[in-house]
Amino acid sequence: MKAEFINAFLTAVLNILSTMARMKAKPGTPAIKADQIAKGDVTGLIGMAGDQARGTLAVTFTKPVILAITERMLDEKLDEIDDTVTDMVGELTNMVTGGAKKILSEKGFRFDMAIPSVISGKDHVVIHKSKNPIVVVPFSTEAGDFFVELCFEQMS
Amino acid sequence: MKAEFINAFLTAVLNILSTMARMKAKPGTPAIKADQIAKGDVTGLIGMAGDQARGTLAVTFTKPVILAITERMLDEKLDEIDDTVTDMVGELTNMVTGGAKKILSEKGFRFDMAIPSVISGKDHVVIHKSKNPIVVVPFSTEAGDFFVELCFEQMS
Repeated sequence: MKAEFINAFLTAVLNILSTMARMKAKPGTPAIKADQIAKGDVTGLIGMAGDQARGTLAVTFTKPVILAITERMLDEKLDEIDDTVTDMVGELTNMVTGGAKKILSEKGFRFDMAIPSVISGKDHVVIHKSKNPIVVVPFSTEAGDFFVELCFEQMS
Repeated sequence: MKAEFINAFLTAVLNILSTMARMKAKPGTPAIKADQIAKGDVTGLIGMAGDQARGTLAVTFTKPVILAITERMLDEKLDEIDDTVTDMVGELTNMVTGGAKKILSEKGFRFDMAIPSVISGKDHVVIHKSKNPIVVVPFSTEAGDFFVELCFEQMS
């Protein structure tokens, strides 16, 4: 995967957390996902498709991290992954992908976004059925870590 | 959602199960998904995006149904939802969407497909974060039922 793809999403994640949740996140080193398994409590997933490439973005949170982010965004105390929280996960997924889409379109790279889905359920597993490697970027925050998974297939 | 969207996916599901798994499935009445929750053991999910519309398809199976379908497709006995089975769920999701895409493109309706994801984990829940209603079509087979969820947003 091109470094500019990864950087566009990485930049979008940091921008959105900083502006929407006043939260600093520290990105770790992007890695190729070996076992194709991210376990978390809630995942936002969105498809991207266009003439030049197709892909999927998944953002997987544990409960403490997504509660902390949502609390900061809404300024209210939350105890459970309820509709408010899954709405926020869908919205964050949309915003991150929209942000990256804007950055990449300025580089002449265009795609359209599908509708975000949110998956919940303890220890659910999301597997991307791509012929290409999956890149995972861990982000650490004061409330814990979350993971961004990215897969892209460029059309030849 | 337009009836021709639903019918295109319904036709694609029946065609693929019949030709690939020699399995008859009986579609139930399409319904608006009230609680936005399909519980299953494994779900194939794919995004669709284009200038005219964006959407998501989810196919949710219980373990007995997907094992029966995979066994018929591969002609081997399976006991667990392993990599072979999740590969098959991804492939089925791809084939159904590809089939529906072909039918709809003949009606002048074009979209591109994202990369399929497969979600596993007991009682996981998939929520589509769309402003439009989600249509769910139950299918019954000799091995049990499975569910196709479809959401589409047309651009104005």
